[in-house]
Amino acid sequence: MSRTQVLIVMGSDSDYPVMEACFKMLKKFGVTYEAHVCSAHRSPEKAADLASSAKDRGFSAIIAAAGLAAHLPGVLAAFTVLPVIGIPCKSGALSGADALHSIVQMPAGVPVACVAIDGAANAALLAIQIIGTANDAVSEKLIQYKHELKMSVHLRNERLQEKLNNMTE
Amino acid sequence: MSRTQVLIVMGSDSDYPVMEACFKMLKKFGVTYEAHVCSAHRSPEKAADLASSAKDRGFSAIIAAAGLAAHLPGVLAAFTVLPVIGIPCKSGALSGADALHSIVQMPAGVPVACVAIDGAANAALLAIQIIGTANDAVSEKLIQYKHELKMSVHLRNERLQEKLNNMTE
Amino acid sequence: MSRTQVLIVMGSDSDYPVMEACFKMLKKFGVTYEAHVCSAHRSPEKAADLASSAKDRGFSAIIAAAGLAAHLPGVLAAFTVLPVIGIPCKSGALSGADALHSIVQMPAGVPVACVAIDGAANAALLAIQIIGTANDAVSEKLIQYKHELKMSVHLRNERLQEKLNNMTE
Amino acid sequence: MSRTQVLIVMGSDSDYPVMEACFKMLKKFGVTYEAHVCSAHRSPEKAADLASSAKDRGFSAIIAAAGLAAHLPGVLAAFTVLPVIGIPCKSGALSGADALHSIVQMPAGVPVACVAIDGAANAALLAIQIIGTANDAVSEKLIQYKHELKMSVHLRNERLQEKLNNMTE
Amino acid sequence: MSRTQVLIVMGSDSDYPVMEACFKMLKKFGVTYEAHVCSAHRSPEKAADLASSAKDRGFSAIIAAAGLAAHLPGVLAAFTVLPVIGIPCKSGALSGADALHSIVQMPAGVPVACVAIDGAANAALLAIQIIGTANDAVSEKLIQYKHELKMSVHLRNERLQEKLNNMTE
Amino acid sequence: MSRTQVLIVMGSDSDYPVMEACFKMLKKFGVTYEAHVCSAHRSPEKAADLASSAKDRGFSAIIAAAGLAAHLPGVLAAFTVLPVIGIPCKSGALSGADALHSIVQMPAGVPVACVAIDGAANAALLAIQIIGTANDAVSEKLIQYKHELKMSVHLRNERLQEKLNNMTE
Amino acid sequence: MSRTQVLIVMGSDSDYPVMEACFKMLKKFGVTYEAHVCSAHRSPEKAADLASSAKDRGFSAIIAAAGLAAHLPGVLAAFTVLPVIGIPCKSGALSGADALHSIVQMPAGVPVACVAIDGAANAALLAIQIIGTANDAVSEKLIQYKHELKMSVHLRNERLQEKLNNMTE
Amino acid sequence: MSRTQVLIVMGSDSDYPVMEACFKMLKKFGVTYEAHVCSAHRSPEKAADLASSAKDRGFSAIIAAAGLAAHLPGVLAAFTVLPVIGIPCKSGALSGADALHSIVQMPAGVPVACVAIDGAANAALLAIQIIGTANDAVSEKLIQYKHELKMSVHLRNERLQEKLNNMTE
Repeated sequence: MSRTQVLIVMGSDSDYPVMEACFKMLKKFGVTYEAHVCSAHRSPEKAADLASSAKDRGFSAIIAAAGLAAHLPGVLAAFTVLPVIGIPCKSGALSGADALHSIVQMPAGVPVACVAIDGAANAALLAIQIIGTANDAVSEKLIQYKHELKMSVHLRNERLQEKLNNMTE
Repeated sequence: MSRTQVLIVMGSDSDYPVMEACFKMLKKFGVTYEAHVCSAHRSPEKAADLASSAKDRGFSAIIAAAGLAAHLPGVLAAFTVLPVIGIPCKSGALSGADALHSIVQMPAGVPVACVAIDGAANAALLAIQIIGTANDAVSEKLIQYKHELKMSVHLRNERLQEKLNNMTE
Repeated sequence: MSRTQVLIVMGSDSDYPVMEACFKMLKKFGVTYEAHVCSAHRSPEKAADLASSAKDRGFSAIIAAAGLAAHLPGVLAAFTVLPVIGIPCKSGALSGADALHSIVQMPAGVPVACVAIDGAANAALLAIQIIGTANDAVSEKLIQYKHELKMSVHLRNERLQEKLNNMTE
Repeated sequence: MSRTQVLIVMGSDSDYPVMEACFKMLKKFGVTYEAHVCSAHRSPEKAADLASSAKDRGFSAIIAAAGLAAHLPGVLAAFTVLPVIGIPCKSGALSGADALHSIVQMPAGVPVACVAIDGAANAALLAIQIIGTANDAVSEKLIQYKHELKMSVHLRNERLQEKLNNMTE
Repeated sequence: MSRTQVLIVMGSDSDYPVMEACFKMLKKFGVTYEAHVCSAHRSPEKAADLASSAKDRGFSAIIAAAGLAAHLPGVLAAFTVLPVIGIPCKSGALSGADALHSIVQMPAGVPVACVAIDGAANAALLAIQIIGTANDAVSEKLIQYKHELKMSVHLRNERLQEKLNNMTE
Repeated sequence: MSRTQVLIVMGSDSDYPVMEACFKMLKKFGVTYEAHVCSAHRSPEKAADLASSAKDRGFSAIIAAAGLAAHLPGVLAAFTVLPVIGIPCKSGALSGADALHSIVQMPAGVPVACVAIDGAANAALLAIQIIGTANDAVSEKLIQYKHELKMSVHLRNERLQEKLNNMTE
Repeated sequence: MSRTQVLIVMGSDSDYPVMEACFKMLKKFGVTYEAHVCSAHRSPEKAADLASSAKDRGFSAIIAAAGLAAHLPGVLAAFTVLPVIGIPCKSGALSGADALHSIVQMPAGVPVACVAIDGAANAALLAIQIIGTANDAVSEKLIQYKHELKMSVHLRNERLQEKLNNMTE
Repeated sequence: MSRTQVLIVMGSDSDYPVMEACFKMLKKFGVTYEAHVCSAHRSPEKAADLASSAKDRGFSAIIAAAGLAAHLPGVLAAFTVLPVIGIPCKSGALSGADALHSIVQMPAGVPVACVAIDGAANAALLAIQIIGTANDAVSEKLIQYKHELKMSVHLRNERLQEKLNNMTE
């Protein structure tokens, strides 16, 4: 079971700063990944190859990030039965509203799981949740992570109380 | 392995006509489901209960459909580590653009996999793909389904050629 | 009558700079408040607890601020019969349009009183107006405040006349 | 305590069908109201009079409904310290998105509590909640109403189960 | 004929930088004006007074600038039969799209002449054109101004040719 | 002074039903008009001719109605120093939001006075107000019209009271 | 020179009613075409084949129509150096605004020539104009067509004058 | 065959920085061009002249860039049978969404080929593709360019792998 678990495809390497949160989240959970820059429009054959072979190469999910007329997640989904998670990237004059429409409004038959604009961390978590449906160790880590989220809210609340106290004094 | 596989939660039974495509797709793939009407705002305890117990009851994915300020998918996601698939329903003055924003723009830490407005069939397919990541029989059916999609395009193309021929004559 | 009057819940402590106008306005009117960081998605049980107990703890209104898929005000409203005032926060690629939709488009049965994007001062004023409906002292201060608003317009107008005079000379 | 409790102002009598849900909800709770057709633009003096005198006449809240450049709620709010609840009405080419912006985006100092587009029932409930902050009988009815909402979800769920059973057979 | 010709009302003195183009354009044409800071919500009586008396005081047009839920132009129009020109100001999270809706979508019976977001120069020109319909001297200046616009395009074109030549060399 | 007062240009005769309210309003005020179908794109020379000669032919204002990429008002404004009033018509997939942008967002130097989508009656009123700035008889009629608007609100209010009484009984 | 001139690809045969205007316009100009139903997501290999071979098969332009997340024009453009004209189809909850974004916001390097939502006639005309750049006979017909457009405006204007006359009598 | 091939018209010289990508792309392909600053509203006669004479002067395509109510491409298209490519420029409060609507939503009969907001490079490529339909040398360069795009994706992918390796170490 040494296969890589998540295939990540980015439309451009300029999306790297946004995608770091995705890489880090996968690492935090010990989920392995392989990442490529590949454009639906500039290197369409590579996109088709990556998606077509993803199932046989043992991946459990594909994460694809793209901006503007963000066709990449949908184009990958056309060539695979793996779940494809799409991240609309904020870029250009429409701030990612165009990418959101291009990714989420897929026609019946070929789904893409769309997350928030620049939602790279959540794309990773969704992939981890998918893996967790058949992997108890990963699932346990997700339960632990939900606990951490609560703790971080607790900490932030404490910081707020300090600020409020300072304001009062 | 007789557990039910997909938990479906609808914000209102008025969403039933849209959700039929979801029920039918799951049946077509032999994927079992349990469906509830449950509102994030009118019956929040039931929503919390359904989501909290979903993992232990053996579900692999949750599908949640809601319109307007569609909080349901996000509220369920708060209580589970299962992947939650959100369907923004077209209703009200904003035609589902509000529901799309409420479902897709989840904050980091608690993802929802958003599909198209009224994208009930794709929500089912996404759940089936998730199950397929660890179930070769389901995965095979998905490959077969992709073939059917191609055949249906082929048929539609033939119908077009007939229309064009009639137009010409 | 020493109970705290307004319960404030913020989805994140990053909303603090926006919320300062709310804190200050409440102080200006001598209205007491208690504030928490609490997320509808990361700490949903705390959100339910805060809202469920708010009436019995003597609060007159709840103010909730959140960005993106801003479920917090609606989730609190699900658990209380107190008026809940929602502040959509400007954040992320859609500049708060998503939060506005998530807060204002609540389904029938569970209202949220939505103010402008980043409208923290007005959220406070609305809470004060609610308290003022049964508290003549507060109501008097609101009448005085309306007078102050007029005076500030008067002052701004004088500054404008100076600018215009300088321009002419 | 025989004063009328809620003042309702409608920009046009064409909003009557939408506003019926408001009238009915107030009646259901035994909350008394007075309703007027009054336009911010066609009868501005009457608007100013209604709002200016509302506090002294004993009202606890004002509900105002308007479409298009829906100035009515804001114009009323300019003349009163009572909480003003605004209902953006769906009408014209922009389906109420214009009215939503005109009502919710009030400047600091003069709040309007905005509900959903055509959200007449929730406007009534918000007024009832405001009254309930100082009226235990009304507050009790709101708690009972929350229970009814849950029961209605329960009923809708039963209807769904019947539909699903019929589908299966 | 020594009366002031244009009445200018600004919702806030923070709109001054945008409005400078309006003041300058009126001066360029020798059209006299009087300007006030006056808010539809904070100083509604002054707004009513300014608009009600404008006709009798001899103004030919009113220019009103406001941001957010920009009610000011419509509120002035309610009290006068003079043409009211509205300038939606870019401010807040929605960048003036809210002000545009609030100003342009006026109901039948009470028109406002809306110009572009931050279109202060064009608001002045529109007022000048209105004055020009009954004033040949002003009308002649407008014809001369149209010629200047053409000359400025000519100059800009020459600058472009220089840039292109430099690029080629 | 027997010249025709308002020049009306419609991008298509399909806009006739919307424009009837414009024709009727002008007639009501005894303001004379001449109307043409003329397209900025299909008959651009006629558009240029109509606008170029409008001032000399004695018109006081131009009203132009167009849908989709509604260039007509702006194109006319390019050729005249008369005030041009633009009516964005609701048509096509974007319901007039495109026409609104095309008409209202004119660049500095060439203003168009934009009214609401399908705001034909208000376009007429704006033209009448412009004429009224130099014509006391027209101005008097506008003051009378404002009174009629108030009366119509009064009548609508009476109808509302009847409905409410019937509801109660 | 007997090759077919324009390749038309439709995402679904449900777009046929919209596309009839395209077929008719091409016929009117005697421009030959071949049309296919082919989906970027359901039959991606066929899409790649159609586009890859289009240049060698002698086509001068490709017209592609699609709704929702309309990837088809962009996907075809990825595989050809022919000009690709995209028609965003009005369908679904967002009325074609999603398809417009998906088609027009193509990244640098792979252009698509986008026409209006449901702009099938103009897509044909654009293809005809492209052919006309190297074909004087086609170019002459376009000049004649521009004349016809003017005549049709003339006719529509005459119909308007009749209506206006009837109204007056 | 020494005629200039592409006519470029810019609404303002402030669009120069965006248009540089257009100039560079045309140069890269050895396609000759002539560029003008010319406004549809400030210099409409020049716009008509440029477009009317473009065919006879031997141009194969026109590229027009404009912001706000971007009428320029449509106005040029009214006067020519050459293909007109429109570039909506990002400027003003609406970030180019207004220009996109004004350019893409052209009425039937007068097409404009719209590219992305600020899509100057793609406008050039579209013109080059149009020229390439009848010019094998240009067509060959486009095939070569498509290869370069693939190579640049390959290079960007290699850079990504380096970054990922550094992250791991």
